[in-house]
Amino acid sequence: MTGTPRTEDRPLTLVDAHAHAWRPVTARARFREGLSGPTAGVAAGHTQANLISVPADWAYDMLLFCQRNPKPCPVLDVTDAGSWRTVLADGADLRTDLPRYRVWHDGRLVDEPTDVRAHWRDDLVSFLIGCSFTFEWALAGAGVPIRHVEQGRNVPMYVTTRPCRPAGRVRGPMVVSMRPVPPHHLAAAIRESSLLPAVHGGPVHCGDPAGLGIDDLDRPDFGDPVDRAPDDIPVFWACGVTPQAAVMASRPPFAITHAPGQMFLTDARDEQYRVV
Amino acid sequence: MTGTPRTEDRPLTLVDAHAHAWRPVTARARFREGLSGPTAGVAAGHTQANLISVPADWAYDMLLFCQRNPKPCPVLDVTDAGSWRTVLADGADLRTDLPRYRVWHDGRLVDEPTDVRAHWRDDLVSFLIGCSFTFEWALAGAGVPIRHVEQGRNVPMYVTTRPCRPAGRVRGPMVVSMRPVPPHHLAAAIRESSLLPAVHGGPVHCGDPAGLGIDDLDRPDFGDPVDRAPDDIPVFWACGVTPQAAVMASRPPFAITHAPGQMFLTDARDEQYRVV
Repeated sequence: MTGTPRTEDRPLTLVDAHAHAWRPVTARARFREGLSGPTAGVAAGHTQANLISVPADWAYDMLLFCQRNPKPCPVLDVTDAGSWRTVLADGADLRTDLPRYRVWHDGRLVDEPTDVRAHWRDDLVSFLIGCSFTFEWALAGAGVPIRHVEQGRNVPMYVTTRPCRPAGRVRGPMVVSMRPVPPHHLAAAIRESSLLPAVHGGPVHCGDPAGLGIDDLDRPDFGDPVDRAPDDIPVFWACGVTPQAAVMASRPPFAITHAPGQMFLTDARDEQYRVV
Repeated sequence: MTGTPRTEDRPLTLVDAHAHAWRPVTARARFREGLSGPTAGVAAGHTQANLISVPADWAYDMLLFCQRNPKPCPVLDVTDAGSWRTVLADGADLRTDLPRYRVWHDGRLVDEPTDVRAHWRDDLVSFLIGCSFTFEWALAGAGVPIRHVEQGRNVPMYVTTRPCRPAGRVRGPMVVSMRPVPPHHLAAAIRESSLLPAVHGGPVHCGDPAGLGIDDLDRPDFGDPVDRAPDDIPVFWACGVTPQAAVMASRPPFAITHAPGQMFLTDARDEQYRVV
């Protein structure tokens, strides 16, 4: 996918030295005030979510696309048309409370503001989709090293050659995130993530990136490249940036999404999504 | 909920002495030929599904209702409007391949045929929703006795006082199925079902039926009463008959569903839905 927007390679500075310990309501308030940056590590133990807002006329196709592709698009909440409220976060405003947004016209990225009140429309239906940052706490708790966090970077994400199952006008390739996992931690990484199906669940692929049509792990389509130890196994999880690839491929007249890695902080605790 | 249709108390005769060993394609063929009856125990190890078909005009509200109530309404597949095909069963015809259907006009049950070709409409969108019969094999494999199967009865189902989260015009109470579980098997019953979130996952309630507003376990709203051992704990799982309660409460102009306990046999294997 040529022309895919790609963030510059740059070290991830935690948005605030104390962001790890913030409550979600504090994180949302800071982002509302204009703070922006990747949310990995923010408000530890609280569920983060991808955002995609589309006109009501496209909402059924998008919801069906999510249902048909539950690994990349596990839906945590869908708003009523025009509403910027969600049951996942008391008092939150989806137009202001994310660190950074992307605004799309006909599948083209036209703006990356920190506030979308000026772009908002009364017919927008917003989807909040599970994010793999959520299961990183479970992996870390099981002793699995999280390389991109160790290295202070955003997680690397790749557009694959694996098509999603289309739904009406919505189609596109699956996007994945990749974490290098030492062989003796692989079982725990698979088990712990699998117990959280609402935030992508278990990996969709392990090992050779060519199996997903990825040419070069050092050139992610979104996020940052991450250094791997020699025996690390690349492990690929379906990613909530998939709806953005679908926006590019399907060209709805209008859409708003989060900027990759700059997620919505919900009040939900990761444990709420664990099946056991 | 007065006026709720209730099946007569009658022993469950397996629809055919060999039905346990049938392949799903065989089961569907027999039902297409006119055989009807409860599908508990049919085509062991294969995933069974609830059916609800609504006009396309109601499909978004129904899909959103399912997304907002994933415990009772875990969606396994949604068809394109008018199609009677599903990716879950090669060559199946959703109009003929279930043992028995229910046809609803304005929320009222008007017919219970074994074939709905005469009722079919080109604007119908069909939802296939996970069924707890699926996890009974996992429970049995873990040594949990399945009382209603032991007693040759359909599982008892109850309309609760717990409202589902509404979506547009679709609202209604949660329906649950109940299985009496001996105390020393409770942990296994919860664990095994929790690992299958696509077929209702873990229970929504254990113990006192009053917690769900159920007055009398011996008078289920659907299915058959089941005998309990003195120390058995009633365990309640969200049930895929919930969309039928929603049809009664929400009164769409037209709907087709399966008859409770008479499910669609998919080609999917239960293991495909296990998260680990």
